[in-house]
Amino acid sequence: MLLTILYIIGITAEAMTGAISAGKRKMDWFGVMFVASATAIGGGTARDIILGHYPVAWVKHPEYIIITCIAGVFTTLIAPWVERNQRLFVMLDSVGLVVFSIIGCQIAIDMGLYPIICVIAAIITGVFGGLLRDLICSQKPMVLHKELYAFVALFSGVLYLGLLHYNVHENIATLITLILGFSLRTTAVYFSWHLPVFHFESAMPEKNEK
Amino acid sequence: MLLTILYIIGITAEAMTGAISAGKRKMDWFGVMFVASATAIGGGTARDIILGHYPVAWVKHPEYIIITCIAGVFTTLIAPWVERNQRLFVMLDSVGLVVFSIIGCQIAIDMGLYPIICVIAAIITGVFGGLLRDLICSQKPMVLHKELYAFVALFSGVLYLGLLHYNVHENIATLITLILGFSLRTTAVYFSWHLPVFHFESAMPEKNEK
Amino acid sequence: MLLTILYIIGITAEAMTGAISAGKRKMDWFGVMFVASATAIGGGTARDIILGHYPVAWVKHPEYIIITCIAGVFTTLIAPWVERNQRLFVMLDSVGLVVFSIIGCQIAIDMGLYPIICVIAAIITGVFGGLLRDLICSQKPMVLHKELYAFVALFSGVLYLGLLHYNVHENIATLITLILGFSLRTTAVYFSWHLPVFHFESAMPEKNEK
Repeated sequence: MLLTILYIIGITAEAMTGAISAGKRKMDWFGVMFVASATAIGGGTARDIILGHYPVAWVKHPEYIIITCIAGVFTTLIAPWVERNQRLFVMLDSVGLVVFSIIGCQIAIDMGLYPIICVIAAIITGVFGGLLRDLICSQKPMVLHKELYAFVALFSGVLYLGLLHYNVHENIATLITLILGFSLRTTAVYFSWHLPVFHFESAMPEKNEK
Repeated sequence: MLLTILYIIGITAEAMTGAISAGKRKMDWFGVMFVASATAIGGGTARDIILGHYPVAWVKHPEYIIITCIAGVFTTLIAPWVERNQRLFVMLDSVGLVVFSIIGCQIAIDMGLYPIICVIAAIITGVFGGLLRDLICSQKPMVLHKELYAFVALFSGVLYLGLLHYNVHENIATLITLILGFSLRTTAVYFSWHLPVFHFESAMPEKNEK
Repeated sequence: MLLTILYIIGITAEAMTGAISAGKRKMDWFGVMFVASATAIGGGTARDIILGHYPVAWVKHPEYIIITCIAGVFTTLIAPWVERNQRLFVMLDSVGLVVFSIIGCQIAIDMGLYPIICVIAAIITGVFGGLLRDLICSQKPMVLHKELYAFVALFSGVLYLGLLHYNVHENIATLITLILGFSLRTTAVYFSWHLPVFHFESAMPEKNEK
């Protein structure tokens, strides 16, 4: 129940970040709705498709996609307000990230998959939406080089899985993961933590180019 | 039957637009066939994968992919002719768009999905092919900011669904949707109609960037 | 058995090319692992999803994704060595390409699909990984305009299928396809062979743009 409410907050916040990106690329209303929805529910869709977990979440619950479309168009009206409250959105986005990760992990657990696949499901659910947004809007994928974004999804998945493994009740595990994942993410944003970057400058063409 | 013929005209026209895009990016013949096929049948493939509707259309009907490959390579020979007859191709492309939308909608109806999912299936089928083409060829996705392209798919899906709901016979509904959808699209192209564009210029970095 | 060993060599080599690409785009360790894995097992994943062949290979064999992640991170440590041994990597990459194609073809055969779909499955398995890498790293997709890359996958698929059709034993067919496919690819790289390129320069806007 709590998870559902947080999930809806999460997709709304993600949809708004998607809409802002679409606005920077001068897309029309349809484009805004599309990018908003891809950002918010693209991660869950990718997870369901890769795991063969049909029907995909929003096909069973079309209200999710209605929410993201409305959030997207609504964002076009309040973009300056969104800008002024950026800090709030970083927080909502962090909640979304951790909630998505927990849900992705839980679905893989319910399918009886290997623990490592459950963690990967958490990462895909948390990260793919933002990745899709950046690909569609031709931006360098933020999730692949910024403030532990994907790492938080990994951390949340492993933590949640570990707690369940030690027989912690599902609700407690969810709450602990939420609090620690959220803290990690916001701390990382605050201190601009990031994973080591691999920067390879070379005259060497790619293998395939040669 | 009529729908099948129009479908084949549609994928041929779409494949040719894909081949022209590939030619602008100096791809080899394989690249041309790939982009042509992705443009023409990528929308239906995305729809089938998202809805879990297996086997995917062209896996059951490989002749479709043969048509798009041939159309793609053939386009390399007649590119200047295609250019001179651009208006014809806008029309064929519009036919394809509406036909794809109707087919996508019908498949979702047959799967017993919610009406809004049927409309989304129409949009995905109509629009994803062009979106894929533009992503692969690193162009700004045209379908997300041009002349009601996606809106025509939405319109066709809603209209077709509405007509069936009021017990109009399938063939009649198809015909009406075709005529009105095609008219809307060509009129939009003629008058350069488009949806309101959301243009957001800002010093604000994305949520994830911050 | 031989095929499994060659497959693991193949995904390792592909993962390393992915990691080098990620390094050129200054991604963090997670990004490196992601691009490495997408490059190495993205082709097989795309094939399984398009054919509805669940569970996807690495969901059943998580060790594959562990290998690609380790290979990716390891590459960040030995990037200059990889550069000096570029020729070796072109060879390993070629082995991977042919092995992927054979595996893709075999899976489609086992599913009882049309011969042309088996060949397409070979191409998707061989080529999509590199395509994903180039899309994520915003490079012009190499596989679509370089040295018969995709053509080698096509050739391997057709050859393998043809050999099986004439009742050649599976292991012999695999071996012959490996040798000839590898020879074709390395010869193509050596002489810089490529398919005819379709280069279309024009003032004509795309159909959808008009």
